Amino acid sequence: MDDPALSSPRHLSRRSLMTTGVLAAGAMGVAAPAVGTPLTGPARASAGVTKRVTLYAEQLPGGLYGYGLAPGQATVPGPVLEMYEGDTLEITLVNTTNQRLSIHPHGVDYSTDSDGSPLNASYNDPGETRTYVWRSREMFAASGRRFMPGSAGYWHYHDHAMGTDHGTAGVAKGLYGALIVRRRGDILPEKQFTVVFHDMTINNRMAPDTPMFEANLGQRVEWIAIGHGNLFHTFHLHAHRWADNRTGMLEGPSDPSQVIDNKDLNPGSSFGFQVLAGEGVGPGVWMYHCHVQNHSDGGMVGLFLVRNADGSMPPGAEEAIHRFRGHTHQHGR
Amino acid sequence: MDDPALSSPRHLSRRSLMTTGVLAAGAMGVAAPAVGTPLTGPARASAGVTKRVTLYAEQLPGGLYGYGLAPGQATVPGPVLEMYEGDTLEITLVNTTNQRLSIHPHGVDYSTDSDGSPLNASYNDPGETRTYVWRSREMFAASGRRFMPGSAGYWHYHDHAMGTDHGTAGVAKGLYGALIVRRRGDILPEKQFTVVFHDMTINNRMAPDTPMFEANLGQRVEWIAIGHGNLFHTFHLHAHRWADNRTGMLEGPSDPSQVIDNKDLNPGSSFGFQVLAGEGVGPGVWMYHCHVQNHSDGGMVGLFLVRNADGSMPPGAEEAIHRFRGHTHQHGR
Amino acid sequence: MDDPALSSPRHLSRRSLMTTGVLAAGAMGVAAPAVGTPLTGPARASAGVTKRVTLYAEQLPGGLYGYGLAPGQATVPGPVLEMYEGDTLEITLVNTTNQRLSIHPHGVDYSTDSDGSPLNASYNDPGETRTYVWRSREMFAASGRRFMPGSAGYWHYHDHAMGTDHGTAGVAKGLYGALIVRRRGDILPEKQFTVVFHDMTINNRMAPDTPMFEANLGQRVEWIAIGHGNLFHTFHLHAHRWADNRTGMLEGPSDPSQVIDNKDLNPGSSFGFQVLAGEGVGPGVWMYHCHVQNHSDGGMVGLFLVRNADGSMPPGAEEAIHRFRGHTHQHGR
Repeated sequence: MDDPALSSPRHLSRRSLMTTGVLAAGAMGVAAPAVGTPLTGPARASAGVTKRVTLYAEQLPGGLYGYGLAPGQATVPGPVLEMYEGDTLEITLVNTTNQRLSIHPHGVDYSTDSDGSPLNASYNDPGETRTYVWRSREMFAASGRRFMPGSAGYWHYHDHAMGTDHGTAGVAKGLYGALIVRRRGDILPEKQFTVVFHDMTINNRMAPDTPMFEANLGQRVEWIAIGHGNLFHTFHLHAHRWADNRTGMLEGPSDPSQVIDNKDLNPGSSFGFQVLAGEGVGPGVWMYHCHVQNHSDGGMVGLFLVRNADGSMPPGAEEAIHRFRGHTHQHGR
Repeated sequence: MDDPALSSPRHLSRRSLMTTGVLAAGAMGVAAPAVGTPLTGPARASAGVTKRVTLYAEQLPGGLYGYGLAPGQATVPGPVLEMYEGDTLEITLVNTTNQRLSIHPHGVDYSTDSDGSPLNASYNDPGETRTYVWRSREMFAASGRRFMPGSAGYWHYHDHAMGTDHGTAGVAKGLYGALIVRRRGDILPEKQFTVVFHDMTINNRMAPDTPMFEANLGQRVEWIAIGHGNLFHTFHLHAHRWADNRTGMLEGPSDPSQVIDNKDLNPGSSFGFQVLAGEGVGPGVWMYHCHVQNHSDGGMVGLFLVRNADGSMPPGAEEAIHRFRGHTHQHGR
Repeated sequence: MDDPALSSPRHLSRRSLMTTGVLAAGAMGVAAPAVGTPLTGPARASAGVTKRVTLYAEQLPGGLYGYGLAPGQATVPGPVLEMYEGDTLEITLVNTTNQRLSIHPHGVDYSTDSDGSPLNASYNDPGETRTYVWRSREMFAASGRRFMPGSAGYWHYHDHAMGTDHGTAGVAKGLYGALIVRRRGDILPEKQFTVVFHDMTINNRMAPDTPMFEANLGQRVEWIAIGHGNLFHTFHLHAHRWADNRTGMLEGPSDPSQVIDNKDLNPGSSFGFQVLAGEGVGPGVWMYHCHVQNHSDGGMVGLFLVRNADGSMPPGAEEAIHRFRGHTHQHGR
């Protein structure tokens, strides 16, 4: 199974290309919509661009299902989808499976027929192709100095129709992925990692088979963390931290946001942040894990390999990776 | 059972009147207290008004208990209580039941005898009437540019004495409600919905008997979400989003708040936000639900009906409501 | 067992001295590093001071383990460690036990050999002494108006090596404590309380043996709340509230932070805030507790005694304390 969240060079370059392609469409010089008074309803004009993507929902080995950008390319999690505030994303979902399924986004605007829910009869029957439209917008004035929020955020998408009316079976089997809506001017990362805490797994895997993400010292890395399933979790990353706000960075010296390195990651929630790999701490192998003790002991842990700036392995890294892979994670010494 | 959180026109107009009455007292042109140095202790003068409310705690059918603003009017949840920062609320609680009970608020100031806890011998014996005083205040200077926070927020109140010293039986049976403290200048909503995630229920109900909230396209709707009980939850609303801060709106373009559509809603916590019904997405039937998969599958889901701007039903809405009511929610197709 | 979180005068003055000592080093007139461009890697110069602390990990009665600043002084939780952004803390950990253990911090910078994890072979064997180095830094410019966050925060430290590779046994037995990194100019408190919600305990104790924290009316009190273990919790403090941001105070009138009195406190997370004891509510005995109903009923509750300004007991306080201690907490009346 291909895993776009796994940052081996081969996978990353493929994903980077896809991501760049999607971003390029959104970034190509379209003027930002003016912040103004609210326009109500789906007829509201978008000042951004419309991008069209075809997604394939496929059955995968091991009882899994995934979304992919081309036939035979489905992965768990699915590809990172990106847009700028104001853009529209038209997703043609090809259901190659024998199951009812759909795609339901968080954070963006959609009419009831793109809700992805059986409640609104918005899903793909087995073998069916259906188009879902996701719109986005900038903040607009409410009253006084206040603004109704725009769509920018680290969001996610998932099935909402397989198994139950809430897509419980589809989510359990891997039909989920990251969706990013950027505000114009946001800093773009050099690498992206998607981490889904889902019951006792990370991206439906357990240690030592969880993703090992890689970056070179100083690279700007974007993490998108998503929660799913029935259990509560806390996401912890060693030796790196971020601001608990929209971007993970501070807007200025008086930004009141708490800086954290551990955050609740519960079903349906998501957040994202950027770090400079190894900044202030150096290269090496750093754990990311659920901080609920019996979850980390049970296998909800993975590695973030920060290589030297030239891409070579830092001292001790091979040994740490070997240590991680060499024993089942449940048992201490 | 009357349900003030259920926005049928009859109920809403009744609640709106009550709410307006309570708000009017708080809003009638009283000068805001100056932001200044702290004044310690209950003797601190309030620059707001004092409002007096009588609440009746009553037994209801189905083993429930509720608070109401008049005899025979108790509901689950209880009425929305509102005040402006600086106001005082004097609540005369009439206990018409044969149980020990109390009322304990979050977010406001009270002396130990208004704590509502058995620890401070602050409760109503069966049949007893007792007055609780809740004060509020504006932020005041701490040091440098910092301020000690005021009382403004989306809070809640609940029993703290029935069954155990923490009111576990009272909370379990419905003795809870929303409390809003507004800052002067806050935008007022046209409608209000109270949603209490409480163990496997919403407002002590399960689908399809959960509240269906209604608004017309573009109406400014205020949601107050409260958590209770023993389980963890995440509140998700389809097709609408809000800023994760005090008001749910952005204070300006550099407000760092994350924008979300899914938020942890755990015991004792509360939050609120305003949305424009159907803004950017159009009218229709939208789900709100706990995003923990086995909670939504188990019945923690309700409907938000956004009608056309003229109050008529949008296409597909009747069918969606029928679908929701027509089958038990636990089973998919 | 000595408990530094328990604010009896004897303990507090001892801890205050230690804390003052640690703070003094950090505060002694060292110029703040300029906010500038990022410097990558552990070679980055610190503009702060380097402080050296020796910690002793010891076995305690009742199967507990603790960290202490002198032999025979270990406590649960361990001492509050403090530094200013830019400072470095060199911790020489003396392992007096027959168990493998370590110290792992949240929020600060450390190389892999100070990670405290078996993954990086960073731990003390039984009887071994080992030095861990924690660095900190101020925010620095990212791009545009944004800053990469500094280290300031209410953090914590804990074992990461006893029992399992995640230190599950060490954490379960009390090897944890608070770590504060302050930004220059932050307001210093008069008292500090550390509250660790850890499975069904507070600081590994259950009511009525949980800590009773004490302050005089109007004193500036700092709470550091830490979550550990396998369960989810919500921290609630009666009659006091704080802003849900880095300091618990508002940065100014347009600070968007929600003001709260109940917050999720899950494994690996921490937060802190300052309140003026009894401000606006008067002296008395106030509960702090987990708001998950069967956790508070099960013993996750303690007392915050606010004395009169002159240190004398307010009316009703003795009775409330007697009530709290006199019956097991699980049973109501």
